[in-house]
Amino acid sequence: MPARKTLWFALALTIASASDAADKPTTPAKSRALADILTAAPASDWRDLDPANTMVMDLPGGTVVIELAPLYAPQHVANIKTLVHEHYFDGTAVIRSHDNYVSQWGDPSEDVEGSVPKPLGSAKATLPPEFTAPISAKMPFTRLPDGDVYAPQVGFSGGFPVARDPRAKTTWLTHCYGAVGVGRGLELDSGNGASLYAVIGHSPRHLDRNIAVVGRVVQGIEILSSLPRGTGPLGFYEDAKQYVPISSVRMESEVAPEKRLHLQVMRTDSASFAAVAEARRNRRDDFYVVPAGHIELCNVQIPVRTAP
Amino acid sequence: MPARKTLWFALALTIASASDAADKPTTPAKSRALADILTAAPASDWRDLDPANTMVMDLPGGTVVIELAPLYAPQHVANIKTLVHEHYFDGTAVIRSHDNYVSQWGDPSEDVEGSVPKPLGSAKATLPPEFTAPISAKMPFTRLPDGDVYAPQVGFSGGFPVARDPRAKTTWLTHCYGAVGVGRGLELDSGNGASLYAVIGHSPRHLDRNIAVVGRVVQGIEILSSLPRGTGPLGFYEDAKQYVPISSVRMESEVAPEKRLHLQVMRTDSASFAAVAEARRNRRDDFYVVPAGHIELCNVQIPVRTAP
Repeated sequence: MPARKTLWFALALTIASASDAADKPTTPAKSRALADILTAAPASDWRDLDPANTMVMDLPGGTVVIELAPLYAPQHVANIKTLVHEHYFDGTAVIRSHDNYVSQWGDPSEDVEGSVPKPLGSAKATLPPEFTAPISAKMPFTRLPDGDVYAPQVGFSGGFPVARDPRAKTTWLTHCYGAVGVGRGLELDSGNGASLYAVIGHSPRHLDRNIAVVGRVVQGIEILSSLPRGTGPLGFYEDAKQYVPISSVRMESEVAPEKRLHLQVMRTDSASFAAVAEARRNRRDDFYVVPAGHIELCNVQIPVRTAP
Repeated sequence: MPARKTLWFALALTIASASDAADKPTTPAKSRALADILTAAPASDWRDLDPANTMVMDLPGGTVVIELAPLYAPQHVANIKTLVHEHYFDGTAVIRSHDNYVSQWGDPSEDVEGSVPKPLGSAKATLPPEFTAPISAKMPFTRLPDGDVYAPQVGFSGGFPVARDPRAKTTWLTHCYGAVGVGRGLELDSGNGASLYAVIGHSPRHLDRNIAVVGRVVQGIEILSSLPRGTGPLGFYEDAKQYVPISSVRMESEVAPEKRLHLQVMRTDSASFAAVAEARRNRRDDFYVVPAGHIELCNVQIPVRTAP
């Protein structure tokens, strides 16, 4: 009899920990399908994160790692890199935790009437909206065949969940769990990357095409999602004491080589990734009586590991 | 210039706080559509929660209120009520917080090899699986026209997000954010309601039809969703010190009348609720350049308020 009779129903949900789970004696044999896929995946089905596009953010609770997507929001990503290079984010804070929606971070003084905002240094204060991008041959696209409520086509592009509108010839990064976007005001060009948010709830896909998404959290989203919720309107912290300080944000390329994280993400155009999606579309372990047969874009988790 | 230039993008997301937001000077006029709907809704578009089906759970962080759905899982709901009446849950704990998935609570000793489980009292130890229910005329159904990746039909029934398969003549409560389900082992009859979980991430709809859903959190989900994540496999807390103690669980009908919460939920078959769904399907405030045009079942939040 297992120590935890209610353990099974969640098996293999968190792909990042699936290889750990495989080592546990309480894991029934058939449920290892996903872990087996990860173990069997050839090295060529994984890619190293590009240190120049990997943002490492240190919070009291740990390190959040964000992969940026320059193909989809080139000017926003470039501006964010400028801010990071000039250490803009050091000393900023998470100022908002909105349940079932987003955590947001940036300059806390923005939140105080009459205060002087933190200077942006060499970064631009406004940017053209990059809410969608023209579909280009440079952008890989592996379509998910399961359909979508919000877009004509959805799938994966270079490690990111994306949507496409073939008629409009546009594509965009979607607001799946862990997506990182750029806060903006009512003016479409008012986002500059100094205020960022990450999705921590049921994916708010209505934000798609209305705001620039610049990447996604590949490790540490639980640090942002488990913060106490703000009690002000929209989940803003009402008291500066509640702000969660950000000690530093660096591009991985600026970190000393021996301190780099060396994460790898499964290639979303690989056979292994197709097998992962299928394993999650139709769960094979003994717990399931009715395999779903389909999967929502935002329920396909993209495997991440430390380079072996 | 608004104090928070990045505030707008989330406007009116949390329906429960929409009426608060309407009082804030920083809320632009057009974004009040949702608050206006709530304000204008006639009393007949709201229903009082039935105290006999309302479960009130006290945690250190506050009170979680769960509405049970006896039409969909009658035997499970009856067993849970028996457990509550006999104060089974007093002294139990949240033992699991699995990021982007579920928080789970119950008898912590279940987690300890060789320990004696807490006696179930008059409650049954096993129950027939109530993972789906036959469609019956007793069950209201207001269909959402936006489609769904997982089921032929989705919509709302008496305040709960549900799916239907007209061919199989079955219906089921869906695993939307805040859904409450019954942990079980591999045996289909092994769930009894002594171990419960609530969804705290992107809705894990693959669990639909594989486990008994018994209701949903109508207030206080943020107390469960913001708990520190467990670092054991599947988000179980590894150390008993991490357990989050549950001091008491009562049915609202057992609470002294002057201490009752008197919550009301918008009727999901009302014109006001249809207007809410439409306001969220096509955002009207100035922030949005592209209204989504569609909405996922689990992105329609059901308004809850304290009875006026």
